[in-house]
Amino acid sequence: MICVLAGGVGAAKFLRGLVAVVGDEKITAIVNTGDDLTLYGRRICPDIDTVTYTLAGVVNPETGWGVANESYTIRRTLIELGDTPWFLLGDRDIGLHMFRTQRLCAGKKLSEVTAEVCHCLGVPISVIPMSDSPVATKILTERQDGSLKEMDFQEYFVANHHEPVVRGVRYDGIEAASPPPQALSALGECDRIIIAPSNPLLSIGPLLAVDAIAEILRARRSACIAVSPLIGGKAVKGPAADILTSLHAQSTVTTVASLYREYCSSLAIDPQDSDESVQLQALGVAPLVTNLWMRTPQEEAKLAKRVLHG
Amino acid sequence: MICVLAGGVGAAKFLRGLVAVVGDEKITAIVNTGDDLTLYGRRICPDIDTVTYTLAGVVNPETGWGVANESYTIRRTLIELGDTPWFLLGDRDIGLHMFRTQRLCAGKKLSEVTAEVCHCLGVPISVIPMSDSPVATKILTERQDGSLKEMDFQEYFVANHHEPVVRGVRYDGIEAASPPPQALSALGECDRIIIAPSNPLLSIGPLLAVDAIAEILRARRSACIAVSPLIGGKAVKGPAADILTSLHAQSTVTTVASLYREYCSSLAIDPQDSDESVQLQALGVAPLVTNLWMRTPQEEAKLAKRVLHG
Repeated sequence: MICVLAGGVGAAKFLRGLVAVVGDEKITAIVNTGDDLTLYGRRICPDIDTVTYTLAGVVNPETGWGVANESYTIRRTLIELGDTPWFLLGDRDIGLHMFRTQRLCAGKKLSEVTAEVCHCLGVPISVIPMSDSPVATKILTERQDGSLKEMDFQEYFVANHHEPVVRGVRYDGIEAASPPPQALSALGECDRIIIAPSNPLLSIGPLLAVDAIAEILRARRSACIAVSPLIGGKAVKGPAADILTSLHAQSTVTTVASLYREYCSSLAIDPQDSDESVQLQALGVAPLVTNLWMRTPQEEAKLAKRVLHG
Repeated sequence: MICVLAGGVGAAKFLRGLVAVVGDEKITAIVNTGDDLTLYGRRICPDIDTVTYTLAGVVNPETGWGVANESYTIRRTLIELGDTPWFLLGDRDIGLHMFRTQRLCAGKKLSEVTAEVCHCLGVPISVIPMSDSPVATKILTERQDGSLKEMDFQEYFVANHHEPVVRGVRYDGIEAASPPPQALSALGECDRIIIAPSNPLLSIGPLLAVDAIAEILRARRSACIAVSPLIGGKAVKGPAADILTSLHAQSTVTTVASLYREYCSSLAIDPQDSDESVQLQALGVAPLVTNLWMRTPQEEAKLAKRVLHG
């Protein structure tokens, strides 16, 4: 049994590779919910949806998120009504959000609705939100004039194209976060824990900020390996490098190792970053040097296999 | 200036006729909100939407409600997810509901959002909800075994196809209903008030149960004419006849007149019901005998003209 701490696109691709490698073996993904938001009355869970769509085989291959062959009637209607939608609104995606919202309003837990959706869409692994109660990642950004402004995650990430300089990150509601019991038991009982190649502060950060999750990880450090989201010090996608630089002085796999060292005993890094192996070892984190690119299903599976078997 | 108390399809057709007759003259429709509901996180206002779509020229001509040339991607998605949607879900319609929900969540009043939508869609009259705070029509129904069950309006009307016998109707939230000031000033200042051909208990009932509206109508009784929703004792559409029979012993224009006599001085009735003219006069309600069918835009306009000018 394998447990993966997962963010969005990178984690989803890695999980797809893992499924290709281990097949029917039990995989549990515990997914970040700090990016979740309510928009037009619908509860949206971007990371859960990305993982779900990817593993259901319906993800848009061009973006890595959203549904393939999507239609945009709702978006056009909103624009006709004078609205300026800043968050992409595909019809099928909205249908899933409406389903989720209706179930949540009826008193179901997010973990229950997620399981229901995954079952219907034929997702072959367990996808579990990190918390059934809402957690909201808040981004402290610096304006051009040096003044600070706290933004909601999606305001920073989507509306402002993750351009603002990040001066702080906090996870609103994290103290009261309620990890589903099946997430904790999976983490406690699995053979291997993998921290997926996701943004350490925006995607994995919220997961590690949940006390119950952090506690198990610290106790099971030797069973846990992380995958660097950086290749050659750069993020494959998104603002990870910029944020590591603004908050931790540099964007290197050493920085990633220092953030994860409490929770994992090794870190998969790309050959481009292998010159930092010594620094990792100094931090007590064993480097596993392997190609981190996941441009094809073959590369996804190869990486998963390497991370799993060393 | 003309004020119309309006329900759904019948009222919308009548209003379309009125616009054809009076053109640019100021028309205000004060619309029932007792049927409103929240579904899949979206705030739905069936009567406001029917009036809006009809006067914007985008209504589905076959149903009299919803949008013409609608697509159903969301509905299909929900069904794929194992949901059994009992309320029709057209994509464009959902887009409007999402727009409304977002605006309401941002603190706008229903009357403000309605005005915004009407402006964008080119609706040539003022459409004002009867209340900015929620009112919910509740239907006491009788089961086959004689036991009673209270249903939400749409549970009775849509999910149960208005088949259950109705033993009572109440308007939840009506004491706290907040009619928008512009509705009250329009009612107070207009030259003519018209009660549209809508269900007296389900559509007009909630409007008349709003204290501030009823008060103005009583004071302006002589300026007010109602249009019977019955033709030959039968409803053109919907359960009006059944409900009048179960709650008021018979489904006749005399019953309608007895329900409206406090608020209007005359009632437009169809030639088929002209034998009740004497009973109407005995109730102090002057009958205006005229063809009530609105099967074509010509008939709609003809009826509106007759109701307006006697």
